[in-house]
Amino acid sequence: MAASAGPEIERLIALLSKLPGLGPRSGRRAALALLKKRDTLLAPLTAALVDAQAKVRTCSVCGSLDTSDPCAICSDAARDNRLLCVVEEVGSLWAMERGGSFKGRYHVLGGLLSALDGVGPEALRVGELLGRAKGGEVSEVILALPATVDGQTTAHYLADRLAPTGVSVTMLARGVPVGGDLDWLDDGTIAQALRARRPA
Amino acid sequence: MAASAGPEIERLIALLSKLPGLGPRSGRRAALALLKKRDTLLAPLTAALVDAQAKVRTCSVCGSLDTSDPCAICSDAARDNRLLCVVEEVGSLWAMERGGSFKGRYHVLGGLLSALDGVGPEALRVGELLGRAKGGEVSEVILALPATVDGQTTAHYLADRLAPTGVSVTMLARGVPVGGDLDWLDDGTIAQALRARRPA
Repeated sequence: MAASAGPEIERLIALLSKLPGLGPRSGRRAALALLKKRDTLLAPLTAALVDAQAKVRTCSVCGSLDTSDPCAICSDAARDNRLLCVVEEVGSLWAMERGGSFKGRYHVLGGLLSALDGVGPEALRVGELLGRAKGGEVSEVILALPATVDGQTTAHYLADRLAPTGVSVTMLARGVPVGGDLDWLDDGTIAQALRARRPA
Repeated sequence: MAASAGPEIERLIALLSKLPGLGPRSGRRAALALLKKRDTLLAPLTAALVDAQAKVRTCSVCGSLDTSDPCAICSDAARDNRLLCVVEEVGSLWAMERGGSFKGRYHVLGGLLSALDGVGPEALRVGELLGRAKGGEVSEVILALPATVDGQTTAHYLADRLAPTGVSVTMLARGVPVGGDLDWLDDGTIAQALRARRPA
């Protein structure tokens, strides 16, 4: 493939192709775009990557990624210590933050229990979660885990483990998404939304 | 958006989102993947970008990108100096090379004539092309330009400009692509393939 491009460009294409959302063909297009826009794209992206590599670390409290440890959320005094939201990954934490309505703390599990993939509790940050729940400040743990089999298995497991601590354990509501047309919803969601119906 | 991620990560996401094929959402996913795979993805990609920035330059002969100037193709003694293939962009050159059947030299125009976008001949490497065609070694100029309005306008313009040099000017054949089902082809291609029919 494009042996004419020289090993440096080939290596760049191969690495760009590994990014989620890019393949060999779009990786090549991305490499070309970078090489064409040296000053506006290649140089700033290189600097940003060097920066990220040097500065971004995992928060020792919640497991999120930030340039400071503890991260900006963990060290934000305005946030509510009583609410602890458990998410699968940093991406889910960012999604919650974009929602903008949660003002408590987070705990990033680092994955989900999965019998198929052989992921057990010891591979996740479960011990740290129990430690924080027992710490005394937390009064409610909100399990914001995906509505998948693995997500629900993990939620049930965590609820069991958290029960002895006495904190209340809740999970995100299931139902019709905002802007969701019933025609396009799967049967499971409709059934759950019907079961959890509320006064209009 | 994800203000919690810190300015360094936000900058990385914004820059990744500018790559062709990535948007704000996939840019975020790419940034997360990079930060999670520090040693296998972030570090090598950073090194590759630093390398590309330092070493890759535009070939002064053909206009392609390579780490040497003249590029590997221009300095390859085994290639045929009599054949000169004109392409729009470096991406088209790479596509021709993947085909693997062309063993002549290239000339990268750097774009196409476009009345709509206000691209005139002076914005393209037309003068350099005429210079190479007049050089004496070239006997045939192959116009490998896209089968679009701008591509064909540019091809006609170049054919006119090249006529006084006496070199023969050809262009890629139009027809049914390999593996192409007639059902899926547009009428224009079928008409051209019919006009250019040949003995079976």
